[in-house]
Amino acid sequence: MTETLAIGAYTDDDTAALRDGFQAHGIAGPDGIAAVDGGLRATVRAVAFKGHKSFGAAEMDLLPKLGLIANYGVGYDAIDVAAASARGIKVTNTPDVLNDDVADLAVAMLLMQGRETIQANDWARSGQWAQKGEYRLNRKMSGGKVGIVGLGRIGREIANRLVGFKMDIHYHSRQEKQTPGWTWHADPVSLAQSVDFLFVALVGGPATEGYVSRAVIDALGPRGVIVNISRGSTIDEAALLDALESGRIAGAGLDVFRNEPKIDPRFYALPNVVIQPHQGSGTVETRIEMAALQRRNVAAYLAGKALETPVN
Amino acid sequence: MTETLAIGAYTDDDTAALRDGFQAHGIAGPDGIAAVDGGLRATVRAVAFKGHKSFGAAEMDLLPKLGLIANYGVGYDAIDVAAASARGIKVTNTPDVLNDDVADLAVAMLLMQGRETIQANDWARSGQWAQKGEYRLNRKMSGGKVGIVGLGRIGREIANRLVGFKMDIHYHSRQEKQTPGWTWHADPVSLAQSVDFLFVALVGGPATEGYVSRAVIDALGPRGVIVNISRGSTIDEAALLDALESGRIAGAGLDVFRNEPKIDPRFYALPNVVIQPHQGSGTVETRIEMAALQRRNVAAYLAGKALETPVN
Repeated sequence: MTETLAIGAYTDDDTAALRDGFQAHGIAGPDGIAAVDGGLRATVRAVAFKGHKSFGAAEMDLLPKLGLIANYGVGYDAIDVAAASARGIKVTNTPDVLNDDVADLAVAMLLMQGRETIQANDWARSGQWAQKGEYRLNRKMSGGKVGIVGLGRIGREIANRLVGFKMDIHYHSRQEKQTPGWTWHADPVSLAQSVDFLFVALVGGPATEGYVSRAVIDALGPRGVIVNISRGSTIDEAALLDALESGRIAGAGLDVFRNEPKIDPRFYALPNVVIQPHQGSGTVETRIEMAALQRRNVAAYLAGKALETPVN
Repeated sequence: MTETLAIGAYTDDDTAALRDGFQAHGIAGPDGIAAVDGGLRATVRAVAFKGHKSFGAAEMDLLPKLGLIANYGVGYDAIDVAAASARGIKVTNTPDVLNDDVADLAVAMLLMQGRETIQANDWARSGQWAQKGEYRLNRKMSGGKVGIVGLGRIGREIANRLVGFKMDIHYHSRQEKQTPGWTWHADPVSLAQSVDFLFVALVGGPATEGYVSRAVIDALGPRGVIVNISRGSTIDEAALLDALESGRIAGAGLDVFRNEPKIDPRFYALPNVVIQPHQGSGTVETRIEMAALQRRNVAAYLAGKALETPVN
């Protein structure tokens, strides 16, 4: 009997593990649930969910015995958790195993933006170095003033890395936290006014929609660089594009966007932006860990055991 | 009376400072000394030197009153220091002020190579993300095993940064050094066998010519990544190219090459190499510091005071 529905694009290894471990039935996205045979839908107790398409009340109501949505990824903003809780459906995610990768990419994007490494690589490879001489001077990064919006597990990993670059660390979170001498700001505008490099490490979802507002972006100033590894929704993207195009901030390093993967084409015209295709956790090693954690949650639920990483 | 000869391509600000401070006469390279008027050559006591062209005994002998060669840059392998010492000519360089920038670029190149950020940026910007979906998975960097060849001031700055990435730090230097739990290797082959990521932070010059040999490169293995921010001369470049082309190592991040800027075109065909046009110290802030330190050395010498950063 099929008790598990696997939603999303899985690797061959993960597809095999879901099939062999749970006899899972696979579909591409939550919009495909309605087309699943009614008899099969009636037996589904757990969903292994991967992707960013909305999984809301309507989808849940198509699965009458659903008790678990095991999300692949730390961010579960595609899932209507309130609707799940109202139906007694548990949600799990895959935190922590991806913190290092996401923080690595965040730091890499900051260094790449400031040191113009993509442009410099092009300069050398195109033969301009040989023909015209040195690439233009760019910008010292070590010793800079950096702000983290959201000092959760990933924000802290970013900050820990930046300590080695002698950065002066500031952060904004709802409450002040125990930190080694970092400076807390009660509001994000104050944070942006105090730093040049701003990392956005918020959770996604309605509560943080547009949290990095036009006012925050303007407070950062013309030497400012914004790095976002959270969700496209956390930044007022129209304000960000305006600021990048007009030079009101210096640049950005962005792994996440609104309307991924069909991002606003205005980004393509901006040389001062390092664009990454939402690959923060995109390493072989970490994706294996994420998928294994997702499956451990499914197995625990089906066996009536405690969930490893519950959300609600 | 012109006592200072400024050799190399200086910024407008530096040219003005050399002219206003020292009435310096400027020429493009050491090969132009012979063409300088003999009367002027006879009065030159100090050379402010910038560039990588050879400054040897023949050039020194064209300047009979020369007492100082103040190099712009930490690496002074273009200057024949033994020949200078034999003539009573002092040499200075510009250490320390560039350590941060060079270490920043070294770490950036490692992350860029492992996380394939240039390729991923291209994937997004070219519309392939929108059309074909996610970029391929790459490689976890944090927690890796890293080796530093040459734990001088720059090597140590690199290692300090990598601690924040939870790397297991190994190094090779002539003698074991005081370090916070890092592992010393008496020879570079042993170092390469023990790590995946190998940073080359040696001084240049004849003593380190080809120090990272074919045996060292082969010991690194197929997961190995070499990052070089020292001098092109420190690596057996033919062996490196062979290893990169055949997949005997995974990749490289290179800021320095033999025959810069006309580097071996075999590098251009390698997607697994991050190429930078020798811009390790290439930030506005640091170049100002380097030029100021160079001029302080010239001023100290001409005033008969102690040199700030003597080499010999």
